[in-house]
Amino acid sequence: MTVPGQSAAIPITPDEIIESAVGAHEAGATIVHLHVREPETGKPSSDIGLFREVVSGIKERCDVIVQPTTGGGKGMSLEERAAVLPELEPEMATFNTGSFNFGLFPIAERGNPGDFEDWEVDYLEGTRDYIFRNTFADMEKVCAMFRESGAKPELEAYDVGHLYNIKYLIDRGLLDTPVHVQFVLGVMGANAATIEQLMHMRRTAMDLFGDGFTWSAAGVGYPAEYHLAAMCLMLGGHVRVGLEDNLRVSRKKRAETNAELVEKAVALAAMFDREPATPDEARGVFGLKGRSAVAF
Amino acid sequence: MTVPGQSAAIPITPDEIIESAVGAHEAGATIVHLHVREPETGKPSSDIGLFREVVSGIKERCDVIVQPTTGGGKGMSLEERAAVLPELEPEMATFNTGSFNFGLFPIAERGNPGDFEDWEVDYLEGTRDYIFRNTFADMEKVCAMFRESGAKPELEAYDVGHLYNIKYLIDRGLLDTPVHVQFVLGVMGANAATIEQLMHMRRTAMDLFGDGFTWSAAGVGYPAEYHLAAMCLMLGGHVRVGLEDNLRVSRKKRAETNAELVEKAVALAAMFDREPATPDEARGVFGLKGRSAVAF
Amino acid sequence: MTVPGQSAAIPITPDEIIESAVGAHEAGATIVHLHVREPETGKPSSDIGLFREVVSGIKERCDVIVQPTTGGGKGMSLEERAAVLPELEPEMATFNTGSFNFGLFPIAERGNPGDFEDWEVDYLEGTRDYIFRNTFADMEKVCAMFRESGAKPELEAYDVGHLYNIKYLIDRGLLDTPVHVQFVLGVMGANAATIEQLMHMRRTAMDLFGDGFTWSAAGVGYPAEYHLAAMCLMLGGHVRVGLEDNLRVSRKKRAETNAELVEKAVALAAMFDREPATPDEARGVFGLKGRSAVAF
Amino acid sequence: MTVPGQSAAIPITPDEIIESAVGAHEAGATIVHLHVREPETGKPSSDIGLFREVVSGIKERCDVIVQPTTGGGKGMSLEERAAVLPELEPEMATFNTGSFNFGLFPIAERGNPGDFEDWEVDYLEGTRDYIFRNTFADMEKVCAMFRESGAKPELEAYDVGHLYNIKYLIDRGLLDTPVHVQFVLGVMGANAATIEQLMHMRRTAMDLFGDGFTWSAAGVGYPAEYHLAAMCLMLGGHVRVGLEDNLRVSRKKRAETNAELVEKAVALAAMFDREPATPDEARGVFGLKGRSAVAF
Repeated sequence: MTVPGQSAAIPITPDEIIESAVGAHEAGATIVHLHVREPETGKPSSDIGLFREVVSGIKERCDVIVQPTTGGGKGMSLEERAAVLPELEPEMATFNTGSFNFGLFPIAERGNPGDFEDWEVDYLEGTRDYIFRNTFADMEKVCAMFRESGAKPELEAYDVGHLYNIKYLIDRGLLDTPVHVQFVLGVMGANAATIEQLMHMRRTAMDLFGDGFTWSAAGVGYPAEYHLAAMCLMLGGHVRVGLEDNLRVSRKKRAETNAELVEKAVALAAMFDREPATPDEARGVFGLKGRSAVAF
Repeated sequence: MTVPGQSAAIPITPDEIIESAVGAHEAGATIVHLHVREPETGKPSSDIGLFREVVSGIKERCDVIVQPTTGGGKGMSLEERAAVLPELEPEMATFNTGSFNFGLFPIAERGNPGDFEDWEVDYLEGTRDYIFRNTFADMEKVCAMFRESGAKPELEAYDVGHLYNIKYLIDRGLLDTPVHVQFVLGVMGANAATIEQLMHMRRTAMDLFGDGFTWSAAGVGYPAEYHLAAMCLMLGGHVRVGLEDNLRVSRKKRAETNAELVEKAVALAAMFDREPATPDEARGVFGLKGRSAVAF
Repeated sequence: MTVPGQSAAIPITPDEIIESAVGAHEAGATIVHLHVREPETGKPSSDIGLFREVVSGIKERCDVIVQPTTGGGKGMSLEERAAVLPELEPEMATFNTGSFNFGLFPIAERGNPGDFEDWEVDYLEGTRDYIFRNTFADMEKVCAMFRESGAKPELEAYDVGHLYNIKYLIDRGLLDTPVHVQFVLGVMGANAATIEQLMHMRRTAMDLFGDGFTWSAAGVGYPAEYHLAAMCLMLGGHVRVGLEDNLRVSRKKRAETNAELVEKAVALAAMFDREPATPDEARGVFGLKGRSAVAF
Repeated sequence: MTVPGQSAAIPITPDEIIESAVGAHEAGATIVHLHVREPETGKPSSDIGLFREVVSGIKERCDVIVQPTTGGGKGMSLEERAAVLPELEPEMATFNTGSFNFGLFPIAERGNPGDFEDWEVDYLEGTRDYIFRNTFADMEKVCAMFRESGAKPELEAYDVGHLYNIKYLIDRGLLDTPVHVQFVLGVMGANAATIEQLMHMRRTAMDLFGDGFTWSAAGVGYPAEYHLAAMCLMLGGHVRVGLEDNLRVSRKKRAETNAELVEKAVALAAMFDREPATPDEARGVFGLKGRSAVAF
């Protein structure tokens, strides 16, 4: 959801991404959600070689749970986006649960001349006419790929209807329960990152899935990221923070690393008597197959 | 949202559609929302000639407000869908406020052999891989077309995020306020037609638009259509019913005409001390330009 | 909640109350909730003789479920109010689940000279300084009396906290589940009779009691009575209407009998494919001991 | 809401209360809410001499805003409770906005032998049959006393109906707007200290008062106190913490002073880019008459 021109803190090369992931883990992160970029340009990429380099590099250095995206970026086909499943057989990966307009163009509009590379301006502005595509046929295919790869899906729901889509996939026997749902709020084109909307998403999930789900929330922007993190901490959810969603550690201070954002989340957790799980504890919570069972 | 194979009551030819609209008006309808179909096959059509025949035919017979769709059907381009605006310059037309999966395929799955024509099965099944496309660029274009044609948009919101899209268009100065919002609930791929979800959509709209909106709700399916109608009647909204959304007049009885569905809505309204507006009263409520200012 | 001066339709003498109950049953009522009044004055009474006359008279004429109040009226002690339990051993009785200000004085303020008897003015005006008393100690006592008498309590909750009181009584083993909860909304001093508040009361009850409750709602005033009735009908609740809560059958027409209010509720139910239970069906739904097991 | 036997940290004598208030202010508190106790026994008191000693002592040492209770404790008359208004003419005082059961008896039930003095057991157990009395007549009187004394009321609402009571007092012209509302949640007998209930109380207040109110929330118990504080911080409310409501600074650690609870609230505020107002800033926010205008 971000382009490198927005912040020098965004890691680009495989080494930078590995370093950022390891740093986040040392700060407390239990799972690292991953995208990759072309090293020369910083453009979003679905190159499996890059993914493999990153996930292997992280695995060598620590036992954090590695969670590649299957959402990819604008312009990638479903096959490209989902290739991480058969190729890497990760413990976990994200799964996008509906189609919607995914508008990043106001970022370019707000920028100053010189902030962005040409491709960034094109990329951002191009989202004005962009739909993040995840049709029912797509989702049915991806469900099968998850099953084959043994990866646990993190079901990213950006609006209320997506929760009903998940229910459909469960009812058809395509997803195993308990499901793990990530409420991603604050994307232009989908639901907003307010406390009210998070409460409503969670309530709808409770009505649809009963005890059959775990959940987390990702608030796009600042202070949404930490507002939603606080709600998760108080209400028994899991927490996601990071530079993909938010660039600030406080109203007045931009984050210099992913680790810094994690540190603040850990400090906030302590306020509510919670602390990060170890990766192995999280493997237990989510029923993951374990790091020895991945293909990297 | 329906195909002719689902019910013999669905009007297909221009004459049938005219007859159905006039009948609905006689039963109490103040505004008629319109799609057209190829007369020979019953397939959804965006043919302007058919639209013109229908709206002119209705205008000759009564003063009901005619509201063509700009949503069209699967497979139509935005240009085709929106052509009713420059061509007919209607008083009102619908405006779809976001992209999402629009799944009709369970209708085919539930059907018995022989229920549907081949094209209907293809059409329904094809929605498994279908996105109803309304990007930000599309919506910006359609806003301009509404302004030029003098038509009042009925903003169809199928999920919570769509309300934020409307807010964006207002903030950019592309939509005039007060806006009129139609909460269309119950489409597979978007938000559900429950009372809880309607309350939440309405609350979100209140938070975003304050006093700057009027609203209605369309519940897809039975009993959703009348549950949502009752909510509208009690909470000060307007009401939409019709064969596009629902085929039943009671749990045990299928509707034979649109008029029959309207009659039930009027009877329900009386329970809550409300009665249909005349078309001219509605023209006042919505600030319409009047039936002499249309291009048909 | 009403005084005779508000409407000539309010039954006062035992015969009038019997007649009104039988009429309500013939119109569709399955359960009749009962208060008694001093025949000469119309003042609220807790006289067991009057209660016995009324319930026996009703029982002779039909098999409707008879549900005396234990709420009584201003100025009665708990012992007086609850005496119907040991004395009559009814199938059902109401149980008030919290203390709160119960303000009827605006009725007197809105009235015209001559509308009310002196005692009525005193009674209404006196509620300015009145608390409807149901302490925890009271409720614990009443629970025991319900158990002994074999009556099923209809738990009247006037505000959110009362639901937590019910939860306390269940947790202490003083109430059997499933409980039957009546959301009484619109009393000045407690929660209001809006659709939003009913949705919240119901949601809170769902969170506290899971599947362990049945429910109904009583909206005080017009149109609240029918708004809440419609919500009950759509959401699977039971319905309460009657002259205790509301005096109008439509905005422009005052009710002449309880039966008339029931008739409208039955007509509204038909809109949502529901119809009244027979008393014996209701005995099954609520697990009542049966009309042969009462002490009258 | 607490008795000394629950925690040695609870200040009892005037000197202890003064010390605790000054300490809380030094830790960041802008307003100190005050009760007094009999110095020898620790019993709740309404003695004006004690109140005067405390508020004068605080005033000598710092400029914190002093806010005496008018709620008092079990067994006090309204006149006793409200005497701080004419006697002290404080800048602010609390105002209780409804009657309800106020149950503290489970505290005694949970205690061990020797935890409590006899009077404490009697006091706590006595709440089983206790109603916190604030009738409409009482509230009307107290409104007049606030006006005469020039004190700003902090309107303590313990359940949803209390918000409607406030609305009634505003509509009668007895309270000036904007009002300041304290949602006191978690008292047995009234609404619970959950995030959902706070959201609902706040939403109801928004619907009733529009922009005409400021607000805070007091969660009784741990972790409710800090959960509600976090909600206030994120949603633009004010914060109340202290030993009256909660005895813990974390799940595993009991608070040793009020200051310690304030320190945690200040640390939590920093997470959300907020910091304590100075007393003079708060005087501006709430429109207070100033510390030179009090009668002590």
